[in-house]
Parts: sequence; C-alpha cells; structure tokens
Amino acid sequence: MTGFTPQAADYRNRVRASFDAQAFMKTIGACIVHLAPGEVDLALDKRDDLCQQHGFLHAGVTTALLDSAAGYAAFSLFKPGEEVLTTEFKVNLLRPADGSRIVAKARVVKPGRTLTVCRSDVFAHRDGKDVMIATALLSMIAINAGSG
Amino acid sequence: MTGFTPQAADYRNRVRASFDAQAFMKTIGACIVHLAPGEVDLALDKRDDLCQQHGFLHAGVTTALLDSAAGYAAFSLFKPGEEVLTTEFKVNLLRPADGSRIVAKARVVKPGRTLTVCRSDVFAHRDGKDVMIATALLSMIAINAGSG
Amino acid sequence: MTGFTPQAADYRNRVRASFDAQAFMKTIGACIVHLAPGEVDLALDKRDDLCQQHGFLHAGVTTALLDSAAGYAAFSLFKPGEEVLTTEFKVNLLRPADGSRIVAKARVVKPGRTLTVCRSDVFAHRDGKDVMIATALLSMIAINAGSG
Amino acid sequence: MTGFTPQAADYRNRVRASFDAQAFMKTIGACIVHLAPGEVDLALDKRDDLCQQHGFLHAGVTTALLDSAAGYAAFSLFKPGEEVLTTEFKVNLLRPADGSRIVAKARVVKPGRTLTVCRSDVFAHRDGKDVMIATALLSMIAINAGSG
Repeated sequence: MTGFTPQAADYRNRVRASFDAQAFMKTIGACIVHLAPGEVDLALDKRDDLCQQHGFLHAGVTTALLDSAAGYAAFSLFKPGEEVLTTEFKVNLLRPADGSRIVAKARVVKPGRTLTVCRSDVFAHRDGKDVMIATALLSMIAINAGSG
Repeated sequence: MTGFTPQAADYRNRVRASFDAQAFMKTIGACIVHLAPGEVDLALDKRDDLCQQHGFLHAGVTTALLDSAAGYAAFSLFKPGEEVLTTEFKVNLLRPADGSRIVAKARVVKPGRTLTVCRSDVFAHRDGKDVMIATALLSMIAINAGSG
Repeated sequence: MTGFTPQAADYRNRVRASFDAQAFMKTIGACIVHLAPGEVDLALDKRDDLCQQHGFLHAGVTTALLDSAAGYAAFSLFKPGEEVLTTEFKVNLLRPADGSRIVAKARVVKPGRTLTVCRSDVFAHRDGKDVMIATALLSMIAINAGSG
Repeated sequence: MTGFTPQAADYRNRVRASFDAQAFMKTIGACIVHLAPGEVDLALDKRDDLCQQHGFLHAGVTTALLDSAAGYAAFSLFKPGEEVLTTEFKVNLLRPADGSRIVAKARVVKPGRTLTVCRSDVFAHRDGKDVMIATALLSMIAINAGSG
C-alpha cells in the first residue's frame, strides 16, 4: 500500500518489459528489487569496470540507477499508451559510492497529468549496514507513444 | 587561451593520468578530445549496450560523460596534491540522446579555493550537424590527497 | 535578432502587462531593462530591506529576479492564450550578492511545446564593473489559460 | 531529539540572532516556528505584495523561506566562529503557492566539515489542511568568520 492507485492494471508487466528493454541496465548489472505503485528500487553489485579513478562507483552509474528507478516509479502510475522520459534531475553526492552493493530507492513525490516529480535516494551496503550516498530530485514527463 | 592560468605545470599529464584510471570511461568508450585550462571535452560513439528502452543513449551515460568532463575541467586548475570530487549536479535533458557520436563540452564558470562551478553542455552529432541534447551545472570540490 | 520567432504578435505587451501584475516585482523594485524574443533582463537596486545577515542581497531576492526574468523569456515565445509557470530551477550562487545594482539576464536555451528550458545569469555592478554572482537553469511550462 | 548533536552550546541563540539580522525575513514577515539541532521551520502569512501575476506567492518568496530555513538548519550544527553561506539549491515547484500560511520545513540530510546538504519542503495551509507546494535540495558551506 503506497497511497497511489495505478491507472494501468498491468503496470507491473509494463515496468518489467520496459526495464528489460534497457540495454544499459544489463550493461551495469542492475535489477528491480522492489516494485509498487509509485515506488521502484533498483540494485547492482559494484564492479571494477563501473568505477572512477579512486575506485568508487562512477557518478554516472549512480545516476543511471537512480534515474531509471525514478522513471519506473513514475511510469508505474501512467495511463496505458503513455511512455516516460526524464526531463531533468539534480543529484547531491553525499558520500563516496563505496560498498559491495548499491540500491536506488525512488518514490513519486507528486504525480501529475504531464509532469511527475520523484525523489531517489541511493544507499551503499558496506560494513554490514546501508549508508546513504546520494539523494536526487527528478522530473518525468508522460508522452503519448508515437507522438513523442 | 581560456583566461584561466593552471596552478600545476603538468596539468595535462595529471588530467590524462586520472582519466586513464577511470575504468568506467573505458567501459563506455569515452576519450578526451579537447583539454585546456578550465576546459575539457569528452566524446564517445553511441553503442547499443549504452542505450535505454527507446534506443537513445541512457541519461546515466550522458551524465557520466558530462560529469567527468566537468571534473577534469575543474581539476585542470587545481594545485598539485589536490584531488577532485563532484559534490552535486543538475542536468536538463533537452532532446533525446540520438546520434552517432556524443560530445560533452565542460567549462569552468567560477574557480574557487574549495568549490569550482562548471557548466557542461552535451551535443549529439546527427544528420551532419551537432544538436545540444543536455545542459548541466556542476559543483566540484578540491580535496587534499590522503585527507579526503 | 535572437534567432527566435515570437508566436504572439503582441508578445511585448503581454510580457509587460504580466510583469506589471507581479506585485512582488514592485515590492523588490525590479524593472525590465531588456526584452526580445526569448530574452529578458530584469534589474533592481540593492536596498537594506532586501538583504540577509551579512548585508548581501538575500538569495530569495536573487532567485525572484532570475526566475521572473526566465519566466518572461519563455513567455515571450508562447502562443496567444498560454500562461507560464515555473516547474523547477537550480541556482548556483557564485559570489556574495554585493553591489549597488543587480541584473538577471535570462535566455531561452530550448523552447518547447510544453516545456521551455532557460538559463539565467545574475550580475552585480560593483567597483565600476559587472561581476557574475549566480547562474541558474530553469524549466517553464506552458499552460492554457483557464485550464491550469 | 533529532539524532544530531550541536557543536555550539548556544546554537539556539546564534540562530535566532542571525535570523533577526536578516532584514529580508522581516520584509516578508517570516518567523521561526521550530528550531532543533539540524531542523528549522520558518513560516509566513501570505500577503498580496509577495505574490506573482496569478495571485500565488512568488517563487522567490518561497525560495527565500526554504533557503533561510535550510541555512539555519545547517548553521545549528556548526562550530562556534563559523558562518553559513548557501552555495546552491534546486527547487521543484509542485503546486501553486496558494493558502493563507506557508511553512518551510528544513532538515539536514548530511552534515559535513565543509559542506552540509539539506532538504527543505514547503507546505501551504489551505482548506484546513497542509499541502506540499515545493521540495528542495540545498548545499550550505561553513566559513570561518572574517575569512569568507
């Protein structure tokens, strides 16, 4: 129960089908670990080929994860026939992206007919606990498939 | 001539050595195509494994490119012994990231002892011309190596 | 000549009428100093009652100026019958807002049917020259009057 | 109890003294309605002279409120002798700023020696309930008084 009512009965299948079509999610090894109306968590295991010069996860990978999570959190509330595009986001990197596993937890803050605003917090699992490494605000736009 | 005076004589080597140590830049096939004091352009060729569900470059890849470009634009002005970390950024996605080649052009807007603010614009090469697909503002922090 | 073609023949009157209806612009003493398709500059004189605890212009005033400038830069390109609302913005404060006169220069970066992205740079006049004190990215949405 | 331990025993007096020195807070009629370590709420009553062209509170006023709230939330955790400056913020405007009373609730997300990241949510009281009209992320920097 998230307080949001999905407008497409098959929203879970729609999110999973779209996620599976994101080649870059496969490239970085991301998977869906939570899916509910207006809520999506994505996770990946840290790998050397995803890191920057200090051995931390590259901010681009963190952003890919938090952006896709937010996109699908918004998309889960969209009407049949609508597609989702990110229009903008802001990310604050709070701590180095260090840890064996990274999880982005996205929640819809304000659904809308055109624009949906989401928050996405990213956690790294290290030393047996989860540490918040980034927080973001994002805007998603609903477009009619074929008209985009 | 960019109006900025580098504080480290070997700034070019420092930027290239750090860039070469970014495994994720290799993963996405990015390379440095311009380097001057306070200015770095990075480019990559679009590949299927870097795309999202509509066949456009994933926003995470666009962000990786514009963030690394801005980080090195800032880093080119840092003192010897200083390292660079991104503290935050804001990206507006203006058009779908479509095109055969993507270039992020980062410029220092305001250098500082602690914080350096950069702008980073991203262009896609398509139909024989360059189209701006994203614009970003980023904050970079200088940290003393070993103290971070 | 700005490269943009206004869609409303009387765009100048529309911008001025809307600006005159903004009570808060009067409160802070702002006025239009430049108006062209996709471009608006607003200025105000620094006053003690607009400052924060260090005697600099409050960031809220700087933001009011840069936001209204961007809103009208976007609005100047809108169709008759459309109104403008800000959906989000990001401001980097580069230097203290000190100086006798403050000018926000807003330019449309990417016009759109629904969303228009603007940049807005703010300058303070001090010691006989203009110093950039803030830079911002903003998203404006076109809504049909009465439907908003 | 907020989970944060203030480093200055007289943090409450320091926040109040600095707030009282913000002339612009008087101009817009803002007051402190909650103050705890890492937490500040500011409120104001809507007035016609603070509005934009549609009769809603101007985004600059909303921003002034949420920015000052966040600045003092951060400042409440600073060491004696440190001052606070905003370096950047991002605001998503979720709904029109309509209502008789507006409250900005700022919370420190991540304290730091140099940078402190805050979240600030703004609520409008209307029709007997509180509606979230804006959400923001902000970065605050600690500077030594006199060295700024």
